Amino acid sequence: MESKNNLSRPIKTRLSKLFDIEYPIIQGGMIWAAGWKLASAVSQAGGLGLIGGGSMQPDLFREHIRKAKAAANKPFGVNIPLMYEHSPGLLKAAIEENIDIVFTSAGNPAKIADTVKSAGIKWVHCVPTVKMARKAQDAGVDAVVAEGVEAGGHNGFDGVTTFCLVPQAADAVDIPVIAAGGICDWRGFKAAMILGAEAVQIGTRFAAAIESSAAEEYKRAVVDSNDTGTYLAFRTIGPIRIVRTAFAQRIQRAEYQGASAEELHQLHGKGRGRLGIFMGNGDEGLFEAGQSAGMVSEIISAGEVVRDLVRGYWEHQDCL
Amino acid sequence: MESKNNLSRPIKTRLSKLFDIEYPIIQGGMIWAAGWKLASAVSQAGGLGLIGGGSMQPDLFREHIRKAKAAANKPFGVNIPLMYEHSPGLLKAAIEENIDIVFTSAGNPAKIADTVKSAGIKWVHCVPTVKMARKAQDAGVDAVVAEGVEAGGHNGFDGVTTFCLVPQAADAVDIPVIAAGGICDWRGFKAAMILGAEAVQIGTRFAAAIESSAAEEYKRAVVDSNDTGTYLAFRTIGPIRIVRTAFAQRIQRAEYQGASAEELHQLHGKGRGRLGIFMGNGDEGLFEAGQSAGMVSEIISAGEVVRDLVRGYWEHQDCL
Repeated sequence: MESKNNLSRPIKTRLSKLFDIEYPIIQGGMIWAAGWKLASAVSQAGGLGLIGGGSMQPDLFREHIRKAKAAANKPFGVNIPLMYEHSPGLLKAAIEENIDIVFTSAGNPAKIADTVKSAGIKWVHCVPTVKMARKAQDAGVDAVVAEGVEAGGHNGFDGVTTFCLVPQAADAVDIPVIAAGGICDWRGFKAAMILGAEAVQIGTRFAAAIESSAAEEYKRAVVDSNDTGTYLAFRTIGPIRIVRTAFAQRIQRAEYQGASAEELHQLHGKGRGRLGIFMGNGDEGLFEAGQSAGMVSEIISAGEVVRDLVRGYWEHQDCL
Repeated sequence: MESKNNLSRPIKTRLSKLFDIEYPIIQGGMIWAAGWKLASAVSQAGGLGLIGGGSMQPDLFREHIRKAKAAANKPFGVNIPLMYEHSPGLLKAAIEENIDIVFTSAGNPAKIADTVKSAGIKWVHCVPTVKMARKAQDAGVDAVVAEGVEAGGHNGFDGVTTFCLVPQAADAVDIPVIAAGGICDWRGFKAAMILGAEAVQIGTRFAAAIESSAAEEYKRAVVDSNDTGTYLAFRTIGPIRIVRTAFAQRIQRAEYQGASAEELHQLHGKGRGRLGIFMGNGDEGLFEAGQSAGMVSEIISAGEVVRDLVRGYWEHQDCL
């Protein structure tokens, strides 16, 4: 029998069961940050690590999958955004490498349903609204990530926040809901569970962890952020939440001065995520990060992040 | 001794003690909706009702205060936005009428600190960021409302959400924090408390209650809203969250087409809140409402709202 005082005991939900993990804590598959090192560290600590395929070509993706398999003997998964040219190649690689947990985002899940279901994959799709949660359920996913506008990187157009999205998504679908956006510590973890989630997906705090592939400049910028330290850029052409770097301020000025969609697309340009997150250039690149950046106060190992969340969860069982 | 099964037993925090109320549930002092009828109904049910002074001239405000006093023998308060020409008149009226609970918003609290403190008033200021929470504490307030971008009506420029603002505000100040923005039911109530709040302020659900002065068209629009049913208009000139009415869609089109600040100010015009909320005109007026509108499903009495929140709170004591 497990002791009530054991602050590392498993947290059981439908999702920890589905993924066969100890804690319903999922590390988001962020571009340029979530490689095999990060994913395997999270999985090794009892959460679910995801390799972020969005910033990889299929061959590199395959390499990361193989390294993650070699590094950890615990379940891990991958994230595949569906809107890229190389997305079908990523999905094919994941299936061929026998990945059995796939998170998809940014696209229509129905289009890949046959492929995913016939491969027997545990499938989760990321949604920014209740309507998309219903569509994902109809497409046959096993769970949805309900991602609020707090989240880093690409966002829905409607700006629905975690606080409002999670309970409404949980009411709207029968499959389990994973909360994402704004979650950093045990408070956000527990609050999300009360709002109706059965797991949390955390991006920014893991992107700033030691095992993340993001540049030190990026991690430092996250740690240095306060509550107003991120900006929801490109709200009219495709919202992306970023740290308020020099480049972010240029975007904000353009937007406040009424820049046209064309001007904004030009300002966005190409390769900004790589330049920012991976190369550490905040003057010209995008530091994609969530509003929880204000709560990330140190660069620690991903395993320590998981343990901190679990300890806080059990320590505050009687907080209400 | 109170029974554990008594689902209407008091909920004790520093704020229920400060205000001498049974439940740390505060009804926001919304313009054109929060008159004496709504405030006294909430107070009578054990919460804290606030008369919204923003849409009243001092004489009318005084009348509402007197009627609220006659209608309920429980504590109630007022809300005074600090940026209007008639704001000093409202504060003077409140003091002369012996109001001892004043919530202020939208302005610099330090300017009125002497007046408020020498009147011995319990004083709360509403803030959209951690920096403003610290400033309010320094000015001598007894508590702050940490209001996320989910909230209806006027908002801060930085878009900090309830999920991220509440824990950071609670960490930054010693005085108690009241969470506002996106709270509708027991889930939001409890989640806010876990995030570090000691009370919640609820606007939209009360604005749609029977005793609210808002027009039936407004209440119906709130009830009919879904998760994406509000829009954060005028983000570049002074954000206001509104229901996506015909007028809201005109604003959104203008913003997406890069309207200048001047054009947006012109589009905003004057008297739009009254025309919308009070007169029920969604084609030309603003229906100010929070993102929680998607969760408001019926027009019921304010007392029933309070009882629903309290019942949910106690029914779900063991939810985690």
